[in-house]
Amino acid sequence: MTAPGRFISFEGIDGSGKSSQARRLAARLSGEGRQVVLTREPGGSPGAEEIRRLVLEGEAARWSPETELLLFTAARRDHLERVITPALGAGKIVISDRFADSTRIYQGATRGDLRATVDALHSLMIGLEPDVTFLIDMNPETGLARAAARGDGEQRFESFGLEMQKRMRRAFLDLARDAGGRIVVIDGNGSIEDVASRIDAAFAAHAGPAA
Amino acid sequence: MTAPGRFISFEGIDGSGKSSQARRLAARLSGEGRQVVLTREPGGSPGAEEIRRLVLEGEAARWSPETELLLFTAARRDHLERVITPALGAGKIVISDRFADSTRIYQGATRGDLRATVDALHSLMIGLEPDVTFLIDMNPETGLARAAARGDGEQRFESFGLEMQKRMRRAFLDLARDAGGRIVVIDGNGSIEDVASRIDAAFAAHAGPAA
Repeated sequence: MTAPGRFISFEGIDGSGKSSQARRLAARLSGEGRQVVLTREPGGSPGAEEIRRLVLEGEAARWSPETELLLFTAARRDHLERVITPALGAGKIVISDRFADSTRIYQGATRGDLRATVDALHSLMIGLEPDVTFLIDMNPETGLARAAARGDGEQRFESFGLEMQKRMRRAFLDLARDAGGRIVVIDGNGSIEDVASRIDAAFAAHAGPAA
Repeated sequence: MTAPGRFISFEGIDGSGKSSQARRLAARLSGEGRQVVLTREPGGSPGAEEIRRLVLEGEAARWSPETELLLFTAARRDHLERVITPALGAGKIVISDRFADSTRIYQGATRGDLRATVDALHSLMIGLEPDVTFLIDMNPETGLARAAARGDGEQRFESFGLEMQKRMRRAFLDLARDAGGRIVVIDGNGSIEDVASRIDAAFAAHAGPAA
């Protein structure tokens, strides 16, 4: 019998360091001999990556918040079916850089007031939540400066500026407060090593003995 | 004050002649001086046409029925916002070659048993139904032969063969029976002119005095 897999997501505002920390945790667990799948959203499977390109390319007003929500949910459904569910079924640890909480924040709280629709759509078409979510909490000014310095070409959301970063941070913290312990807030200030040791401690405490 | 628009859809199995009849009705009404928008699904707006290509290109098993349903709903949302709703608001007659009933049949009844999900998703993200739907009912053998002769390169659904055509016809007729009068079944056998005159009579009886 295969041990159950573990599903871990990283969330946070742009420039919070979540992608680097997701990679680092995946590398650490792989180094310990665990079977790890490191993935990301939007995207994470070939079909979902195509949908990601369709959403993120072009001008910001190209899709309405509702259409964007449907496209991201289609991408998530493909990612779930093709990558996450099979890996968890094989007892692997899945680490995803963003998952449904990002949709709750970006489409549910910042682009429109669609939170009830986001939740209903998630229940209808996705259902799954991570076992634990690490929310890297970060000073919005620092996060914005880091994201701008990175300049990775997908500036769709980053371009909304400091006020939006502040709203997103607040929305993520509100979400964490209401998530019944699933979302663990990690202080993202300090060096990469400082943040990494906080995540390792939280992993030991919250993600339990992994498969 | 602008008179309310009219929203008319055409449905039917492949090869039933619905696209030709939608075009002909649009031309006739335009010729009478009505403001008509002829459109189609999947697609009908620039964004929705891109989503259409994403779904219909590639192999048939590329997307699961659930992901395909989400993609078609995203396309419909865009079509609704950018084309249908503005045209109806301006008092125009919108004639669409396919609308949500096609999703109820193709994703809801033939590719999977997703009918309850299709209905819930429609209520959540679309809501609108046509004022009247003309279902062109057609002998499945004749429809299949016509669709094959046309060879338009989008054979994703047509390729499922005669048994599937028969199932789709049955599902469309069941849908019409339960639609509370919105769906008018038109006998699609006979010449184009025969079918056209049946549609004109049904239009006069069901679509009421147009704007």
